[in-house]
Amino acid sequence: MMPESRTVAIVGAGLVGLGWALVFARAGYVVRAYDPSEEVRGRIMSQAEDSLADLREVGLLNDPQAALSRLSVHDTLAGAVEGAFYVQESVFETVEVKTAVSLELDAVIGAGTLVGSSSSGIPASRFTEQCAHRDRFMIAHPVNPPHLVPVVEIVPAPWTATEGVERVVALMHEVGQVPVRLAREIDGFVLNRLQGVLLNEAWALYEDGIASLADIDATIAHGLGMRWSFMGPFETIDLNAPGGIEDYAARLRGLYADMVRTPPRGPWPDEVIAKATRERRAALPAEDLADRRAWRDARLSRLVAFKTSQGLSD
Amino acid sequence: MMPESRTVAIVGAGLVGLGWALVFARAGYVVRAYDPSEEVRGRIMSQAEDSLADLREVGLLNDPQAALSRLSVHDTLAGAVEGAFYVQESVFETVEVKTAVSLELDAVIGAGTLVGSSSSGIPASRFTEQCAHRDRFMIAHPVNPPHLVPVVEIVPAPWTATEGVERVVALMHEVGQVPVRLAREIDGFVLNRLQGVLLNEAWALYEDGIASLADIDATIAHGLGMRWSFMGPFETIDLNAPGGIEDYAARLRGLYADMVRTPPRGPWPDEVIAKATRERRAALPAEDLADRRAWRDARLSRLVAFKTSQGLSD
Repeated sequence: MMPESRTVAIVGAGLVGLGWALVFARAGYVVRAYDPSEEVRGRIMSQAEDSLADLREVGLLNDPQAALSRLSVHDTLAGAVEGAFYVQESVFETVEVKTAVSLELDAVIGAGTLVGSSSSGIPASRFTEQCAHRDRFMIAHPVNPPHLVPVVEIVPAPWTATEGVERVVALMHEVGQVPVRLAREIDGFVLNRLQGVLLNEAWALYEDGIASLADIDATIAHGLGMRWSFMGPFETIDLNAPGGIEDYAARLRGLYADMVRTPPRGPWPDEVIAKATRERRAALPAEDLADRRAWRDARLSRLVAFKTSQGLSD
Repeated sequence: MMPESRTVAIVGAGLVGLGWALVFARAGYVVRAYDPSEEVRGRIMSQAEDSLADLREVGLLNDPQAALSRLSVHDTLAGAVEGAFYVQESVFETVEVKTAVSLELDAVIGAGTLVGSSSSGIPASRFTEQCAHRDRFMIAHPVNPPHLVPVVEIVPAPWTATEGVERVVALMHEVGQVPVRLAREIDGFVLNRLQGVLLNEAWALYEDGIASLADIDATIAHGLGMRWSFMGPFETIDLNAPGGIEDYAARLRGLYADMVRTPPRGPWPDEVIAKATRERRAALPAEDLADRRAWRDARLSRLVAFKTSQGLSD
């Protein structure tokens, strides 16, 4: 069972940490945030206010003021963590920084407090080994921004206690995220492995001149990505053959095996990246990247509202 | 330029061919449909009427009766093709069947008439070599159902005339599809190569016990698939690093290269398919597959209406 405390701590309050603060605050939790940068700390409240207003505008939140009132900013890590039963750590992603912050957390967390790291690629075993309470550290990897994209990968280190993993999975369900539980550590976890294979193939097709960057993008945005926005690849193929997944596999696994590139292509080549950069910058000048990100998040928030209205949000 | 004719022919009117009939009829074209099966021919009009009513219900079509009045069913292939400037062929996908139908079309199509095959994997060079007018045959591969998922891959055979490819690309734009133009034939084209690499990795993760089928699905449906439903993988990474695609590549191509399975995994093993089948059938009994497909298409049609309302449909 969860401790009585309804307090969580946010350690590292850049874009990812801020999104996490919104996730917990809107779900009714008291959220205590800390970031090592004074500048970042100084803008947390106003950024949160703006984002909560955006959520209200698309119908995803009734009372932004109530959510905001549950959020506070603290000048020290120890101050933020005080009374928290769960810490979401979202600091800069290097082994050195993650190790230092984990040791700092290890020294101040209360009895039973659990720590989830937003690490997108480095497994917890690489930065929590020296922690006295290492059995309470794990990965809780979101997609950015976490208050709009609900999936979160829960990845235990070899020494993480199963009970703690189960508590964090339950917590994520309770706050409206969609936790995905990995049995053990693997490079890239599940999400970035799936993204990685698709990106590697997309780069190879582009390198070989099969299609333009824009056309490869269209294949996903106006094709595969539409079903995938509300059902995964296994359910998709289960519905794509008369007899379900087994029937689909019997018909097509040979085709898919034949498509595998052997030997595998190496890292994306410099000159191909340079060509792709020219194609993207012609479509979207560098100075418009920030506006396009805001556009993306606005579309994402409306997609979330749409999925919610259709009963597709979990 | 397009011929004066506003008539297209549908050859093969199963689910894919029927969807194509709706695409052209709602766009104002006269559509003449043929299927070798009398039973299939007998249900085309009522199926089209139902689907056009569904499109109206979600706000994607104003006048279903007008669209239906442009559609007719013919008892012979030659009869359907009469007067058509474009033929969309969607017959059963084997080299033998495609070859026979292509030769039949070759003998009756008018001067300048173009033929696109809905083939999802067999390239046109494998079934049009013997055609006298083989320079007018190509692949026009949709996602099912084509009236809801707009992408269509245009793939020339080595002998397909470029002018004809350009006409079909223009036609697809005009009827509201999103054509993706491939420079040349490649196994699986673009769409199924991208789907294939992701499926192969998903099966491998499942085989290794990293996560459940449902959790791997959730990683896409509540994670990666959300952005991919309105922007492709290249635009996604372009927006996911401060300096755009080049910056993203510099940071992460090494990580993605390290994830490649070497040697590649073979075809999905029988026992893994059997296990996955049990997991899927526990989640969705076989007798509910048809209902779930109807549910999927209803959600897809509402997603299309949502994307249209957000300016995301092309």
